Amino acid sequence: MSNVPRENWKKFSGWYEEILLKAEIYDYRYPVKGTGVWLPYGFELRERVYSYLKELQKKVGYKEVLFPTLIPEDLFRKESEHVASFEKEVFWVTKGGARELDRKYVLRPTSETAMYYMFSLWLNSYSDLPLKIFQVVNVFRYETEATHPLYREREITTFFESHSAFATADENEKEVKLAVEIYKEFFDWLGIPTIITKRPEWDKFPGAVYTIAFDTILPNGRSLQIGTVHNLGQNFSKAFDIKVQLPDGKVDYVWQMCFGVSGRVITALLTIHGDDHGPVFPPHVAPIQIVVIPIPYKGFEEKVLSKARSVFNELKEAGFRCILDDSPETPGAKYYKWELKGVPLRIEIGPKDIQEERVTIVRRDTLERIRVMERELISSVKETLEKMWKEMKEKALNFFKSKIVNVKSIDEAKKALDEGCVIGASWCGNEECGINLQEKIKARILGIEVDQDLNPQKAFSSVCIGCGSSAKYKIIIARSY
Amino acid sequence: MSNVPRENWKKFSGWYEEILLKAEIYDYRYPVKGTGVWLPYGFELRERVYSYLKELQKKVGYKEVLFPTLIPEDLFRKESEHVASFEKEVFWVTKGGARELDRKYVLRPTSETAMYYMFSLWLNSYSDLPLKIFQVVNVFRYETEATHPLYREREITTFFESHSAFATADENEKEVKLAVEIYKEFFDWLGIPTIITKRPEWDKFPGAVYTIAFDTILPNGRSLQIGTVHNLGQNFSKAFDIKVQLPDGKVDYVWQMCFGVSGRVITALLTIHGDDHGPVFPPHVAPIQIVVIPIPYKGFEEKVLSKARSVFNELKEAGFRCILDDSPETPGAKYYKWELKGVPLRIEIGPKDIQEERVTIVRRDTLERIRVMERELISSVKETLEKMWKEMKEKALNFFKSKIVNVKSIDEAKKALDEGCVIGASWCGNEECGINLQEKIKARILGIEVDQDLNPQKAFSSVCIGCGSSAKYKIIIARSY
Repeated sequence: MSNVPRENWKKFSGWYEEILLKAEIYDYRYPVKGTGVWLPYGFELRERVYSYLKELQKKVGYKEVLFPTLIPEDLFRKESEHVASFEKEVFWVTKGGARELDRKYVLRPTSETAMYYMFSLWLNSYSDLPLKIFQVVNVFRYETEATHPLYREREITTFFESHSAFATADENEKEVKLAVEIYKEFFDWLGIPTIITKRPEWDKFPGAVYTIAFDTILPNGRSLQIGTVHNLGQNFSKAFDIKVQLPDGKVDYVWQMCFGVSGRVITALLTIHGDDHGPVFPPHVAPIQIVVIPIPYKGFEEKVLSKARSVFNELKEAGFRCILDDSPETPGAKYYKWELKGVPLRIEIGPKDIQEERVTIVRRDTLERIRVMERELISSVKETLEKMWKEMKEKALNFFKSKIVNVKSIDEAKKALDEGCVIGASWCGNEECGINLQEKIKARILGIEVDQDLNPQKAFSSVCIGCGSSAKYKIIIARSY
Repeated sequence: MSNVPRENWKKFSGWYEEILLKAEIYDYRYPVKGTGVWLPYGFELRERVYSYLKELQKKVGYKEVLFPTLIPEDLFRKESEHVASFEKEVFWVTKGGARELDRKYVLRPTSETAMYYMFSLWLNSYSDLPLKIFQVVNVFRYETEATHPLYREREITTFFESHSAFATADENEKEVKLAVEIYKEFFDWLGIPTIITKRPEWDKFPGAVYTIAFDTILPNGRSLQIGTVHNLGQNFSKAFDIKVQLPDGKVDYVWQMCFGVSGRVITALLTIHGDDHGPVFPPHVAPIQIVVIPIPYKGFEEKVLSKARSVFNELKEAGFRCILDDSPETPGAKYYKWELKGVPLRIEIGPKDIQEERVTIVRRDTLERIRVMERELISSVKETLEKMWKEMKEKALNFFKSKIVNVKSIDEAKKALDEGCVIGASWCGNEECGINLQEKIKARILGIEVDQDLNPQKAFSSVCIGCGSSAKYKIIIARSY
């Protein structure tokens, strides 16, 4: 049973949209293109995922805040690169009641311009630094292309954006590394493997000095950007006049960085651990960890139900998030339902189990059935969940690794991309060459792969895949969302 | 020391705005009229307050969801009373990028029209009922009059709205009562006294059959609506075609109700328990419950600091949210700072305390100093906090009661209102009479006071205060925000 056919799952798009609805995570039938409703089960999942990231960030001094959604046009226009890039894709609020507004508002596409005006009021002295804040909000992009639930939307309901300011360039640079470490830990906790690259100049965040990005690989071989960290240098502090007095009495602009993740984390979580039966949630994230299902046989109904109840109570007391499904549906219908909901473990209780003082544990990932003694229920469940999670992570990592191929020529690159792989290649570093290359192979240069200290990885071939000149860096290329 | 002069606090408006900024709760200097930023300390307060309400609602089956902000014009226009009332005060999104949108969007002023379209997709059979959901979101009102931080805003960032649907009118009516009970418990937990009334017909929620409202009284004697519960009957289900098949096979529209609170809860919390020194937070809500302040004397600096640290650690281990203020500021500056932040207890440690193995506990509400044996630290702190909270609630209730006066004539009514009171009066129940009365006394009829079962309270005088005819109900009248 461990080799579940993954045909539908591999097709990704149909599978993904089906399970968002059927597992009751996110309903994208709301009648505004590129928006959707977080259903209770999905909302709880989202809360569990984001709670952990909040915890990680609070540990290193970030504090939660909440800014308004409306950004006045004049603030929005202060940083020129930023506005130039976002202008085509913002929604404008132009009317209040029947009245045309004198001053138009942008629905925030991200909050730099809203926040940094306030920073200029808050920051006066180096003793006000560092300033480290985050917020979880909805942001808006007027996407003109096809939208997709949670990963390309007009209203992104789950944007977790963090912003900080420092007295020196050095501290700011260190914070960029810290943010990268935080995201590494976060994605590792979710079992989502990532490639970390420095985005090419032409693809960095508008207004940033540079951008570090986290991409994962979806079942169909396409990459998905799921986190970014931006070093903003003094670009915004100069535009917004955010200055502080330093210990030596001089006044200087602050150094800034910001980082963010969105609902795409949920897309990755669903698809990377999923299979043809639906999502498979990591045990520590699952809104429901265990479902107990009585398997009634004629004449044993009461006995089976009473045993199921006592098993359920024991699990609950031990602190597991569990439910007892004693509805009148057939066991088969219940299996289908809870598999589709990604519940990590199912415990079946039938007459034979009772007779032998056993319970049957079924793993959601492999559908493996494990019969254990009832008196060892709690320890067996713990053990099984641990083992399951370890194997889920390994499986996700193995899949991820199998999808990355180093290539040395355009032909090899095209072939690998067509086969649903992400590719590594050697590159000269020249912008024109990079943009030409992207066009030739109809794929996107995600960026230069970086090491632990964000140093660019060296080329593995001496020749640039694009122009044939001397190669400097290892880049990652993908068909991306 | 228990009689802190309340002159500034009584003026309310200046006091309120000053402490929002100085206590670092909410920064309303954001450059869009009627908006503001939740600062970290304020955000944490908001979280604590709302967590409790979430808990109360989850206990009775409500589940958290999240809907989009944008409501298409056609949905918004479906319920005629609703749109007629809100049309003058909604923001319109009319442009995406440089393009005029074919279909305009409203920024939700409340979510009935967004949610109930989805209800029509979700609900088919009585077995899908009851449906009970809530969300905490930002909503938008184009207020043309003066705005005030947290209680009259253009972007209300903290709207906690709950919506439910039932198969029968009776269940729906019961849920209205349940919601009233939930809010009673919530406001009681915050020590915020309220009057509960049935709003007059002309002042009910647009689209509702009737509205039950909770009002409190601010220090200046003006009333503030802080919670509402609406019985929507089948008004919206007919407009949005939300039908289910009932057990008897018939198909009928569902019965609906909704209820909500906003950031005004924080306004009430700050002002009702506050004094001239700033807010005083209930111990169970305070982001910081205790601040430990060393009082160093020459030659004893190390000893004092080390004792302060050990007291702090002991409190922390006992589960209190506490901080040690060992900054280089003077004790006086620290007192001022933490009083302004509303921290319920301050613990001072000086050389004399150490010598006598004592600590000095200072209550924020009365500024009373209590010296206790160090070995009884934890039990004394617990006791003091409990006593303090009991007295805070009593004081708030006594103030509230002192502000409500029953009157029998227009002259008495005017006099009491001018003196900063809320009034009870007897009324005939005639709409024209009520509206005339409001104009005559320049105040608002909040509604008919209701009892436990939402029955209207009977008139205490046989004569209507407005028209002199036979009185039916007891009404509450106030100068309101």
